[in-house]
Amino acid sequence: MELRKLLRPSSIAVIGANDKNGFGKSTCINLLSSPLKDHIYFVNPRREEVFGKKCYDKISDLPEKIDMCVIILNKTLVPGAIEEAAAAGCRAAVVYASGYGETGDKEAEEQLRELCRQHDMAVMGTNCAGFINNLDGIFAFGMLVNREPQAGNIAIISQSGKICLNMMQIRHMNYSYLISSGNSTCIHVEDYLEYLIHDEDTKVIGLYLEGIKDPEKFTRVLAAAAKKRKPIVIMKVGKTAKGSALAASHTGSLSGSDKSFDAVVKKFGAIRVDDIEELAEMCHLLSVIPMLPPKPALSAMCLSGGETGICADMGTLMGLSYPELAPDTAEKIRELLPGYATVANPLDMSATLAHDGERYAQVIQAFMDDPSIGLIICGQTVLQHHEKQDVIYPMSDGMVMAARKKKKPIVVMSFFNSSRDETIRQKLESEGVPILPATGGGFKLLRYLMDFVSYDPDAHTLELAIPHGTGKQNVALSERESKLELKKYGIEVPEEYVVTEKDQLDEIEIEYPVAAKIVSPDILHKSDVGGVKLNIQNREELRAAFDEVIYNAKSRCPDAQIDGVLVNRMLPPGVEVIVGVNNDPQFGPMVLCGLGGVFVEVFKDAALYPAPLNREEALHMIQSLKGYKLLSGYRGGKEGDVEALADLVVQVAGYAAENKDTLAELDINPVFVYPKGEGVAMADALIVKRR
Amino acid sequence: MELRKLLRPSSIAVIGANDKNGFGKSTCINLLSSPLKDHIYFVNPRREEVFGKKCYDKISDLPEKIDMCVIILNKTLVPGAIEEAAAAGCRAAVVYASGYGETGDKEAEEQLRELCRQHDMAVMGTNCAGFINNLDGIFAFGMLVNREPQAGNIAIISQSGKICLNMMQIRHMNYSYLISSGNSTCIHVEDYLEYLIHDEDTKVIGLYLEGIKDPEKFTRVLAAAAKKRKPIVIMKVGKTAKGSALAASHTGSLSGSDKSFDAVVKKFGAIRVDDIEELAEMCHLLSVIPMLPPKPALSAMCLSGGETGICADMGTLMGLSYPELAPDTAEKIRELLPGYATVANPLDMSATLAHDGERYAQVIQAFMDDPSIGLIICGQTVLQHHEKQDVIYPMSDGMVMAARKKKKPIVVMSFFNSSRDETIRQKLESEGVPILPATGGGFKLLRYLMDFVSYDPDAHTLELAIPHGTGKQNVALSERESKLELKKYGIEVPEEYVVTEKDQLDEIEIEYPVAAKIVSPDILHKSDVGGVKLNIQNREELRAAFDEVIYNAKSRCPDAQIDGVLVNRMLPPGVEVIVGVNNDPQFGPMVLCGLGGVFVEVFKDAALYPAPLNREEALHMIQSLKGYKLLSGYRGGKEGDVEALADLVVQVAGYAAENKDTLAELDINPVFVYPKGEGVAMADALIVKRR
Repeated sequence: MELRKLLRPSSIAVIGANDKNGFGKSTCINLLSSPLKDHIYFVNPRREEVFGKKCYDKISDLPEKIDMCVIILNKTLVPGAIEEAAAAGCRAAVVYASGYGETGDKEAEEQLRELCRQHDMAVMGTNCAGFINNLDGIFAFGMLVNREPQAGNIAIISQSGKICLNMMQIRHMNYSYLISSGNSTCIHVEDYLEYLIHDEDTKVIGLYLEGIKDPEKFTRVLAAAAKKRKPIVIMKVGKTAKGSALAASHTGSLSGSDKSFDAVVKKFGAIRVDDIEELAEMCHLLSVIPMLPPKPALSAMCLSGGETGICADMGTLMGLSYPELAPDTAEKIRELLPGYATVANPLDMSATLAHDGERYAQVIQAFMDDPSIGLIICGQTVLQHHEKQDVIYPMSDGMVMAARKKKKPIVVMSFFNSSRDETIRQKLESEGVPILPATGGGFKLLRYLMDFVSYDPDAHTLELAIPHGTGKQNVALSERESKLELKKYGIEVPEEYVVTEKDQLDEIEIEYPVAAKIVSPDILHKSDVGGVKLNIQNREELRAAFDEVIYNAKSRCPDAQIDGVLVNRMLPPGVEVIVGVNNDPQFGPMVLCGLGGVFVEVFKDAALYPAPLNREEALHMIQSLKGYKLLSGYRGGKEGDVEALADLVVQVAGYAAENKDTLAELDINPVFVYPKGEGVAMADALIVKRR
Repeated sequence: MELRKLLRPSSIAVIGANDKNGFGKSTCINLLSSPLKDHIYFVNPRREEVFGKKCYDKISDLPEKIDMCVIILNKTLVPGAIEEAAAAGCRAAVVYASGYGETGDKEAEEQLRELCRQHDMAVMGTNCAGFINNLDGIFAFGMLVNREPQAGNIAIISQSGKICLNMMQIRHMNYSYLISSGNSTCIHVEDYLEYLIHDEDTKVIGLYLEGIKDPEKFTRVLAAAAKKRKPIVIMKVGKTAKGSALAASHTGSLSGSDKSFDAVVKKFGAIRVDDIEELAEMCHLLSVIPMLPPKPALSAMCLSGGETGICADMGTLMGLSYPELAPDTAEKIRELLPGYATVANPLDMSATLAHDGERYAQVIQAFMDDPSIGLIICGQTVLQHHEKQDVIYPMSDGMVMAARKKKKPIVVMSFFNSSRDETIRQKLESEGVPILPATGGGFKLLRYLMDFVSYDPDAHTLELAIPHGTGKQNVALSERESKLELKKYGIEVPEEYVVTEKDQLDEIEIEYPVAAKIVSPDILHKSDVGGVKLNIQNREELRAAFDEVIYNAKSRCPDAQIDGVLVNRMLPPGVEVIVGVNNDPQFGPMVLCGLGGVFVEVFKDAALYPAPLNREEALHMIQSLKGYKLLSGYRGGKEGDVEALADLVVQVAGYAAENKDTLAELDINPVFVYPKGEGVAMADALIVKRR
């Protein structure tokens, strides 16, 4: 399957060309103005011509071999058209037709997929709006594009065609491609992504996603992008049940669990944004800046105290840092500003330099030369139609002067969105200085940028343990079986014995106090049936406990299979932690780590990360917990053995990855974390297998 | 002091009129184009004329009595100008001059304040940029306003002049007034606020605030606005230490504690936004919609599944609700849409109605008629320069038709900001249909709106306990004194005795087990010095404990004054809660309530609310805790006595309000909350007085 023939064709046939309102008419108009127009052919046996252009009866009549065809026919006619195109040597097509999986007809979709596979045909769609290629000026797109092609370095892949059109209409965004992937019947989002990651003309890739189909390929391309440091910005719906339900009915794709998706994105260092406007503006920011900030640290300079205060507040609230200025930076700036100005970061310059572009540039330059600063924010609202005398003219001159040094990125932070003076915007952005959205949005973009800058692909395991054909039935192992399974894998499990006869108790060498618990595959909640006795102080008590738990289990669960009594040492109390696994059907085992009990249950304070993972990743998970304080010496208490906990998390992730096809869930709850150097111990474990 | 003469003068003198770049020139140009221009006079003894207009030597030379003067003189000349103006019968002035409190010269500022008080002169400033009055077309403003006056219903008060100018430049916002308050030397923000709350021309008030000066008046005007349901939208900097430091150096005003401020705003139902763009857009939304939604519940209708999914996701993430449609609403909509459309809320209409304004209006109408819905979102991106054939034309026709029924508000949710087609915007907004910012921002505005709609002024105590002249020295009471103080106020304190002689123990009738604690004003952390013995089972153990705690205290704190030993019943354990008070220097006692221990310390899970408060407010505080689950029957546990806890919170707030001038801090920690009907009990209490 060759995506290049699809996206950069040298000749195009429009099958079913017509001039009726809708996708057909729009496609014809879009393509007629293409630079390729002498190699664009209309095919429609019922029409002599459309928009003055000759219509051929069939694709085999065309005077040259066709790279790609756009099929404007309804569902029933599509397979025939594909056959004909393939017979004529065409290997790529756009199919607009809908009524497939998204409305329930999965069979037709499967048949079409098979047909394309047979003919090695690269088909965009179904249920799509085609694509816009600005590099060659080809708008093979079903909605009218009211804009001249303008080559840019942002590529967009969107399951929704309308969002492609809206993004194309944003005048300050310049794209290489906008691809509406629709149902991804044949070519998946992951395939386009792979193409674009290796496309030299594309600097940033934006993804509007409802779900993905091929998690393995998705993982592979994310890993490739991470290694190339090519930014992928992702907006995915389905964060909430309402959104997810709608996504499913729209393209019939599996939304998967949103939290797992989020964890995957984090692992591979892609940028997940919260809304579609952020998707556009984040792509724009990455598109315009000529280099990444060398470090995730800001400086800001504004003309008024009010604006400086807002930059300080908003940046700090977003978790960004304004480092103290180096003494010589401060000195250089002090010389440039009036005496009453306070030199600090962020900097209230006062309005005095607003009319002096050269000195304004020198202040930027001073920030650029400070090794602790990674990016310079120039605070100034750019609105529509600025008057000649507006300070934005000398200020933007200053920004351009400084930007030409190509040392560190400069951005303009506006305080209001409203609209933008396009002359000013073009002047600045052609020099690599983007105008950001107003502060709430603008600082959030900088947060994303700095997270991207902070990510190191070499510190992450760039793989997932994606399951293949797991069973559907869940079977829970007993605590004993669960622990044995973990022990077999090499995970340390506290000393314990299973006893079937009371007299075996006499042979046990164990340190008291101990606990006795019923062993039964049929009893999951042992304490609910009186199947647990704790704090047993000596052998005599242990013998009594043996009778009691067996009696309780038998009398309350007469049908349960009783495999004996588990005896284990009472663990000294420690900080209670839960380590668990949930096997996501798409992305495989997700490892969870959190403080136990109410912390995870009420406060949802847990970190989720895909298996497998390394020690650094495990430590990062643990440190990301709000309750991490409890493990790091809270209120003068001892520091917990975080290292040992991280080791356990790595081991559990390894076990889960190895068993990705058979593991459903795993809970080690609680794990007791002891003071530094004293390790951790699991008090209970539960494995649920999928068969 | 008469603000009307200042803000709506019939005659104006510009003292120090000139044509040099800066505030002087800009003010003259701004005022020369005013409809009032025959009643505007320039005063400057050094000039014959400025911009062709005659200059008088002094204000007393003017041919009519002057309502207001704009003083464009530096600091040293201001008092003389004020004197002269007052002598000429003028009672209002704008003073631009800076160099007062904001740069450290508090004395000059105090002198000017006193001078204005003597002459009953309403002075805007110092260190301000003046004001814009669009009602009468008067721009008494020091920066050039490149816009015709256009009367609107939004009033802005901003400590920063630049922000006034930027807001005026937003073409889709129409204002009654924009007031740059500067240092508030004479007229405070609170005074303008009071004027505007009673101003019939103003529907919404926007406030850009660095701090307030007169908390009592602020409270009074917020209460008046709450009762009138006149929305006040507040953006305040100083959320973070960096922002706060800058705010202080900018206008010399006290930022106060941001969290207390937030609690005050909540109590009075004002709307606090997070950034300055939100301030503008929230004012705009409230300005345009013709009525408030009758209930805080949304419906949304979009042309594509992608957009519908985004509305579902973003609204739900913002905590907003899309109610299920009533059966006849669903039926009406089903009849309007093609058969394959799924009728739901939010509604994916598909594109079929995009060209049919009338049917589009009927869908809006169906939502409007549904009693469970409060507001209708029409999802459609409005960009710049829409082409004639764009669906926005029939769609906006439909919105206008439905809006004219004046039943419920309709808003347009765009998916991208970019810029807006002004023709479409004016068409819609003149009918009361605002175009919101793209989804992240747009749904946040709806969240603010719905919070405002949900607020009921009658359910709140619209007062604060603002302290007057509290002392500066903090003095801690002992646990015993603290509890006695609370008991005196009528708060229930568990049975306890203070014993100074060991033999007194024999007289105590108390239920065991008990605790013994050292009583000393000098020992705050009793257990750290061995001054606490718990779980004492009988009189014999109690006698031993008496000796032990006295011995420990004396040996470890030889200089401490020992007042005896406190004996109290060991309280049965319950859910641990903290109830506390912090006395904010501006807004008085702030009552805190949170789950005890790590919940409040690590997770910061606490609610803050100003005293006094009523039972509903106390219950709301408790229910707002993330850990509320622990009090409401967590994991099959018993429901806690939330009612009794609310009673305690109300009592504590009452005590704090009564002692606002002497209380510094109060901690009741822990309070044990017992199962429903069994009340609460305080285990420890600490009062810190300020003397």
